[in-house]
Amino acid sequence: MADYVRLGIIGIGNQGGNYSRSLTSDPAWCPEIKLTAVADKNPARLEWAKATLGEDVARFDDAIAMLDSGLIDACVVSIPHYDHPKYVMECMKRGIHVMCEKPAGVYTKQVREMNEEAKKHPEVVFGMMFNQRTNCLYRKMRELVQSGKYGRVRRANWLITNWYRSQFYYDSGDWRATWSGEGGGVLLNQCPHQLDLWQWICGMPVKVQSNMRFGQWHDIEVEDDVTTYVEYENGATGVFVTTTGDAHGTNRFEVQMDKARIIVEHDKLSLLEFDVTEPEWTRTNDKPFATMPAHEVEVETDGQNPQHVGVVNAWGGAILRGEPLVAGGEEGIRGLTLSNAMHLSAFLGKPVTLPFDEDLFYEELQKRVAASTRKPTGKQVYADTSSTYGGSK
Amino acid sequence: MADYVRLGIIGIGNQGGNYSRSLTSDPAWCPEIKLTAVADKNPARLEWAKATLGEDVARFDDAIAMLDSGLIDACVVSIPHYDHPKYVMECMKRGIHVMCEKPAGVYTKQVREMNEEAKKHPEVVFGMMFNQRTNCLYRKMRELVQSGKYGRVRRANWLITNWYRSQFYYDSGDWRATWSGEGGGVLLNQCPHQLDLWQWICGMPVKVQSNMRFGQWHDIEVEDDVTTYVEYENGATGVFVTTTGDAHGTNRFEVQMDKARIIVEHDKLSLLEFDVTEPEWTRTNDKPFATMPAHEVEVETDGQNPQHVGVVNAWGGAILRGEPLVAGGEEGIRGLTLSNAMHLSAFLGKPVTLPFDEDLFYEELQKRVAASTRKPTGKQVYADTSSTYGGSK
Repeated sequence: MADYVRLGIIGIGNQGGNYSRSLTSDPAWCPEIKLTAVADKNPARLEWAKATLGEDVARFDDAIAMLDSGLIDACVVSIPHYDHPKYVMECMKRGIHVMCEKPAGVYTKQVREMNEEAKKHPEVVFGMMFNQRTNCLYRKMRELVQSGKYGRVRRANWLITNWYRSQFYYDSGDWRATWSGEGGGVLLNQCPHQLDLWQWICGMPVKVQSNMRFGQWHDIEVEDDVTTYVEYENGATGVFVTTTGDAHGTNRFEVQMDKARIIVEHDKLSLLEFDVTEPEWTRTNDKPFATMPAHEVEVETDGQNPQHVGVVNAWGGAILRGEPLVAGGEEGIRGLTLSNAMHLSAFLGKPVTLPFDEDLFYEELQKRVAASTRKPTGKQVYADTSSTYGGSK
Repeated sequence: MADYVRLGIIGIGNQGGNYSRSLTSDPAWCPEIKLTAVADKNPARLEWAKATLGEDVARFDDAIAMLDSGLIDACVVSIPHYDHPKYVMECMKRGIHVMCEKPAGVYTKQVREMNEEAKKHPEVVFGMMFNQRTNCLYRKMRELVQSGKYGRVRRANWLITNWYRSQFYYDSGDWRATWSGEGGGVLLNQCPHQLDLWQWICGMPVKVQSNMRFGQWHDIEVEDDVTTYVEYENGATGVFVTTTGDAHGTNRFEVQMDKARIIVEHDKLSLLEFDVTEPEWTRTNDKPFATMPAHEVEVETDGQNPQHVGVVNAWGGAILRGEPLVAGGEEGIRGLTLSNAMHLSAFLGKPVTLPFDEDLFYEELQKRVAASTRKPTGKQVYADTSSTYGGSK
C-alpha cells in the first residue's frame, strides 16, 4: 500500500467544503491523506471546488461515479443525514474505507443495516466523525468515570443549550429543520456529539422520557427545545436539556458518583473527590447533618483537542497501520438510539424503554415526513463553520 | 400595645429549639420579640428548656394551654408538618399572630382551609418561615426577572442536590421520612424553600411531570430523589432536580430570558445581558451561525441575608407597626402546590396539570399513610442546625 491515503468526499457543502479546503490548503493538516476527488450534485459547489481546491482534485456530479473511478481509497460521507447509511454502504461494497458524518443516519433501522454491511467488510476501516471525542476534557471525564475508582454513576445531567441558531440559519437550506430533509431538529443536527459523549462516558440508559417543543423558537417543523429524563439500569438518573433557541445558553455536564462529583463547564474539568464513598458514609456516620470530607483534585489532561483533524488523522493511521480510531463506525447507532427514543417518547407522550420499537418509530417518523412542508426558498447559503467547533463552553 | 411582642413557640425540637435559644441568649437577635413561653409534648425537651432558656420562660406540655394562657401575643408553629394548619388556626381563632414553619402543611386541602381561616382574622399577622427569601441573591434575581427589562422567562432550571442526609439523620426521629409522620421526603422537608423561591421568582407552572425514587439512597419509604419537568403558560419550561443522596451536590439555578441569562450558584449571582432580545435578533440577523453580542453585568445587591432572624424581625415590625412581612402566610400554599403536584404525577406516572385534583392527591397520600411503617427506633436526636442555613452554595 502507498504511504498515503487517496481521499474522496461526497458532499462539499458547509462541512465537506471545510474538510476539502483544509486538506488542500494546509499540507500539515493531514499529511497522510491526500484529497483526490470530490462529488456533489450541485454545479455551483463543483465550480467552487474547481476554484478553491485546484485542478488536481477530480470533480464528480455523481457520487457513485467517484466511488467507481479508482481514484480514491477512502471516502468521507458528508451529505444530508438520511443518505448517510446508503453511501457508507456503497463505499463498503467497493472496499473503500469510509468516514461517516454524524449522525449515523436518521433512524436506527437504517443504521442497523449499515452496521450489518460493515460486518461483511472487515477490511474496510469504518469510522464516525465524532470529533468531540477528541476533546481532552471528555476523554479525561470518561477515564475517571470508567476507572472504577469512584464507584457507580448516580446522576448524569447535561445542560447543553449553547447551540443557538437564528431563523436565518434555518432558512439557509431548504432541507434544514424539516422531517423530510433532516428527520429532526437539534437532536439530529447539533446534538449527535453530546448524545454520543453522554453514552460514551456514562453508558446507555434503559428508559427515556422526553418533552419536546416543535418550532417553539423558530419557524420550523422539527424540535428546537428538548428536555429529557433517563434512567439507567443501576438506578442512576440523567437529564439532557437542549435547544437552539437560547441566545447565550450553557454547556454544563455534571456526573455525580459514589465517591466523586465531576463537572465539565467553561472548558474546564473539575473533580471533587470524596474521602469515603457515600454508601459507606451513610452506613457509618452518626451525626444527623454531617457529610464526609471531600477535596478538589487538580486534574491533568493531555491538553489535546484536535477535533476533525484528529479524527481524520487517526482514521489515516488506522487504514495505513491498523492504529485505533477515535470512534468506530458501528458506534454511531448508540447516540442515534438515544435521539430516536427521545423522539418516540415525545411523539407518544410517554416513556420509552430500550430497546424501543424501531418499526413504530419509523412509522411515526414517516407520518411526519408525509406531512412535511419543505420551505420553498430555493436558496442555499454556505458558511465557514470551522470556528464553531472545538470548545466545551 | 406594648413596644414588644410576647412570643410563644409550639415545638422546641431542632428548629424551635434554635429559635428559643437565640431569642433568650442574644438580646440583639430580635429586640422587639420577647420569648415568654414554649410548649412541647416531650418532657425531655421541657427539661432542656428549663435548663437552657431560664425560669422566665413558661413551659407547657400542651400547646392549647399555652395559647389560652394569656402569656403570648404571637406564636411560632414549629412541629411536624401535618399539624401546621391545625395549630396555626388555633392561634388565629384566639387572635394570636402566627408564624408557620415550612411547609405550610402536607396537602393543599388543609392549607386551603388554613388560608380560609386567615381571611376571617385580618387582625392576625400571619407569616410563613420562608427564610431563604431574605437572601439578597434571590431577592435580586426576582427583581431582575420581574422587572420586565429582559422580556419573558424561557427556561428555569434548578439543580438543587446539596441537601445531603445520611441514614443516621433519618433514623434520628421516628416521624422522619414516613408517609404518616412527614407526608413526604426531600420535597416536604428540605425543598419547601426552593419550591417557594422557584415560584416566587418565575411564577407557577401549568403542567408538572415528575419522576421520583422512593428510598433510593436510604432505608426510608418516601422520595429521596426527584427529577421534575414543568411547563409554564407562556411556553417556558423548567427542570427541578433534587435529592438527599448526593454527598456533595450542587445548587445551581439558571433562568434564561429573552434578553438575559441569570444564574445563582456558589453564593453568587451572574447576569449576562444581551444587546438585543432573542426574538428581535432571530428576525433580523442574516448570518447563519451568529448570535447577538452580550456582556456580563456586575450586579450589586444589598448584601443582606439575615435568614430566620430577618423573617422574625419583619414579623415583629408587621405586628407592631404594620411593616411588610418577608412572606405572607397565605403564600405557603404555592410551593406546596408544586410539591403535591410532583407527588401526584409520580404516583400516577403521568403529567399533572394545575390546578390539580386535590381530592385525588389526598386519596393517594392516604393510601401511603395507611401502608406506612413507622420505624420503631423510639429514639429522637436533637441537633444544632443553625449552621446549615444561609448559603446558596
